[in-house]
Amino acid sequence: MRIWAFFLTAMVAVSAAADDNAVKYRQHTMDAVGGHMQALVQLVKGEVDHKDHITVHASSLAALSTIAPDLFGADSKTGADTEALPKIWEDPDLFKQRLDAFRSSAQDLDAAAKTGDMAKIGAALGPVGKSCKGCHDDFKKKD
Amino acid sequence: MRIWAFFLTAMVAVSAAADDNAVKYRQHTMDAVGGHMQALVQLVKGEVDHKDHITVHASSLAALSTIAPDLFGADSKTGADTEALPKIWEDPDLFKQRLDAFRSSAQDLDAAAKTGDMAKIGAALGPVGKSCKGCHDDFKKKD
Repeated sequence: MRIWAFFLTAMVAVSAAADDNAVKYRQHTMDAVGGHMQALVQLVKGEVDHKDHITVHASSLAALSTIAPDLFGADSKTGADTEALPKIWEDPDLFKQRLDAFRSSAQDLDAAAKTGDMAKIGAALGPVGKSCKGCHDDFKKKD
Repeated sequence: MRIWAFFLTAMVAVSAAADDNAVKYRQHTMDAVGGHMQALVQLVKGEVDHKDHITVHASSLAALSTIAPDLFGADSKTGADTEALPKIWEDPDLFKQRLDAFRSSAQDLDAAAKTGDMAKIGAALGPVGKSCKGCHDDFKKKD
């Protein structure tokens, strides 16, 4: 029996490490999402004067929005102090709607950024912020 | 005299807000840099299996490396708990060398990412990590 107990413990340990890595990867990628988004908010508000940075942040955010669905695999339900709520995997249709809203609004913002028209960029930023909040409200632990 | 004191106080307040915004913008942009970099490290180590994400993170990091020099304007020396050391502005030549190393290594990593060759990508990631560390060691407050 002892050898089975050893293997079982080892398997659980490997599984926990996989979970931790998947969660950490999501957190690092979301750090990038949050960093780009908060930088864009400051740029649109005119809090800093680097309008030529807008396309950098917007194109990165659009690219990140396409990989966001991959961050919520079944191996990332637990581990490493995740703030992701189980509802993500319990209500996948609603969660997918939220991810679609993020992708769609981030693509629109990227297109607006490429025009250089600050009115269009400002108008396109709102829906991205709304998509962040909409998803976090329902699917992320409150701070 | 009172009216002058008022204007002086108001000017100092506006200046402090500008500093805070410049520092916050640097911190948000650096959050994106750090998020992409740490995600890339996990991908190269094979801790997560999303090799198709490598180009997303590498191209964003390369774009961020081109705007990094703009994050250290004279208006960002103080304010909002910055961890940037005065040496940045006291030794601009050395600081520029470090920023150049970041940009150059990040561009090389982006080029390697586009080949899809994991050996090349792994080899190109090291110099980026070294450029992060090289700059932080000399120009950022220790945690």
